[in-house]
Amino acid sequence: MMALYFDGKLSLRDVRKPEPAAGEALIQVILAGICGTDREILKGYAGFRGIPGHEFVGRVVISADSRWIGRRVVGEINLACGHCDWCARGLGRHCPQRRVLGIIGHDGAFAEFVTLPMANLHEVPEEISDQAATFTEPVAAAAEILEQMMLAPGTPVAIVGDGRLGLLTAQVLRHAGAEVTVFGRHGWKLDLARGLGMRVVGAGEAEPPPASFPLTVEATGSREGLGRALRLVAPRGTVVMKSTFHGAPSFDATKLVVDEVTLLGSRCGVFPPALDLLRERHVTVQPMVSKVFPLDRGLEAFEYLEHTSPLKVLLQAS
Amino acid sequence: MMALYFDGKLSLRDVRKPEPAAGEALIQVILAGICGTDREILKGYAGFRGIPGHEFVGRVVISADSRWIGRRVVGEINLACGHCDWCARGLGRHCPQRRVLGIIGHDGAFAEFVTLPMANLHEVPEEISDQAATFTEPVAAAAEILEQMMLAPGTPVAIVGDGRLGLLTAQVLRHAGAEVTVFGRHGWKLDLARGLGMRVVGAGEAEPPPASFPLTVEATGSREGLGRALRLVAPRGTVVMKSTFHGAPSFDATKLVVDEVTLLGSRCGVFPPALDLLRERHVTVQPMVSKVFPLDRGLEAFEYLEHTSPLKVLLQAS
Repeated sequence: MMALYFDGKLSLRDVRKPEPAAGEALIQVILAGICGTDREILKGYAGFRGIPGHEFVGRVVISADSRWIGRRVVGEINLACGHCDWCARGLGRHCPQRRVLGIIGHDGAFAEFVTLPMANLHEVPEEISDQAATFTEPVAAAAEILEQMMLAPGTPVAIVGDGRLGLLTAQVLRHAGAEVTVFGRHGWKLDLARGLGMRVVGAGEAEPPPASFPLTVEATGSREGLGRALRLVAPRGTVVMKSTFHGAPSFDATKLVVDEVTLLGSRCGVFPPALDLLRERHVTVQPMVSKVFPLDRGLEAFEYLEHTSPLKVLLQAS
Repeated sequence: MMALYFDGKLSLRDVRKPEPAAGEALIQVILAGICGTDREILKGYAGFRGIPGHEFVGRVVISADSRWIGRRVVGEINLACGHCDWCARGLGRHCPQRRVLGIIGHDGAFAEFVTLPMANLHEVPEEISDQAATFTEPVAAAAEILEQMMLAPGTPVAIVGDGRLGLLTAQVLRHAGAEVTVFGRHGWKLDLARGLGMRVVGAGEAEPPPASFPLTVEATGSREGLGRALRLVAPRGTVVMKSTFHGAPSFDATKLVVDEVTLLGSRCGVFPPALDLLRERHVTVQPMVSKVFPLDRGLEAFEYLEHTSPLKVLLQAS
């Protein structure tokens, strides 16, 4: 089958079609999304070798449980051991033996086919388009914040970063009742946020006074984002850190201690609430799709990402 | 009166005795403790100019409320405005207009006399010695952790740092039911911790596996401490950051996000629980007093601190 393969360099290859292990399904990939983490992998993040790609929608073609066959699915990305204390607590996404689709020890979805445990699969409701379904994983990551903390209605929230994760998080938290302001530097992305009803602050615009938000979210994917999120947060407030990037962030530790700020790392979430948000259209994703490349032009898609700053680029695999 | 004065350089001076403002008391200092923050101030922390010193015990000599006169007291260090939202919520220690004794805009206790609002004063129970009373502020800072989070009995806790704050925090959390391990690099300080019944891990000793503590406390006062506290913390665990220091810490932000760790800044606490802990001897402080210098040899005390690594040095003012 055709796949994008990373071995220190990304290339298009003809590789063996994967065979599902016990409990796994074989899925024909329809569409896959390229995420910031994929680009970090190409810079060395997690030391991954193999087929990247962890945001996808596809159709089950082989499964020991015949009810899955032919269904359109998305898949949670952590392949947990199923036996440890973490798995017993329902937190398989923190299982120390876990593999992670297209990130740690398991080939991903930038290919014609992918395998995943059936336990990871969720059927996509028909109201959700293929393109929208590829956003299930990042919407789940945004909604994870609500699993980790209480958010009182009317809470002023600053989202630092106008990229895809920033705009999804803004929408998810606003649906949960927050009063959201998006801080960014890309005019057209902020226009999109404004069009979705958000308050926005662009580059060079007057910033609200420091320490004015009880909750801020760092979603820039850059070393400097945390510093800005910390400047905006109020004493005893919380900064949620969503970005994964290669390297150390730069921030004022004294402010964290003196203002007794909580810095909350936040990563993957579970899929059912994300599918609900997409089905009920509480989160708008369609305008974020900048371009769709066929899988065999995948290298071109990554080049396009290097030279432009799109919100979302998809690969069409079938 | 005699005082240590910092104007970019620390010197012993004869300065005007302070006059208490409305609502304030004049206190004759008995003993004052030198804290890590005082040494950071001498390196430029908080840009302070004036008389440093915020850990003290003294006796009230002037007060509009005559009941205070003659009483032996300790004093909370934040001078809040009393009118803002923070003050209304009982969180005057986060009041944005606050002054802080010996740190921001209010002369401190390395002097014969000091002033503080009567609202900040707490009488010292007679069971607590003068020397032990100077530990009220750091014991309150250690106990602040319990105001910020729930700690289930039996929780394994790693204290990173065998300095004064580390050993106090270890004792406070152990009294709250935690199973404490102290990580340090000074043989005699770890011996002291061991003598207090703690498990200890010294330099070069076999370390427990990474990610084995649901709670770790960074109390090293150095840039590297946070990295170690993060290595030791379990996924979804909490790292409490107690150190204030000049400069940025160095840590792996990816671990914070991927393991969904909470980093909790923690600073000053209220005094009543600290006085209870000292009176009931749940916290042992006497063996931490390394040396007492008379105030007029205060410069020598700071030199002593530079060249040795004592747990606590006190200045005797009267």
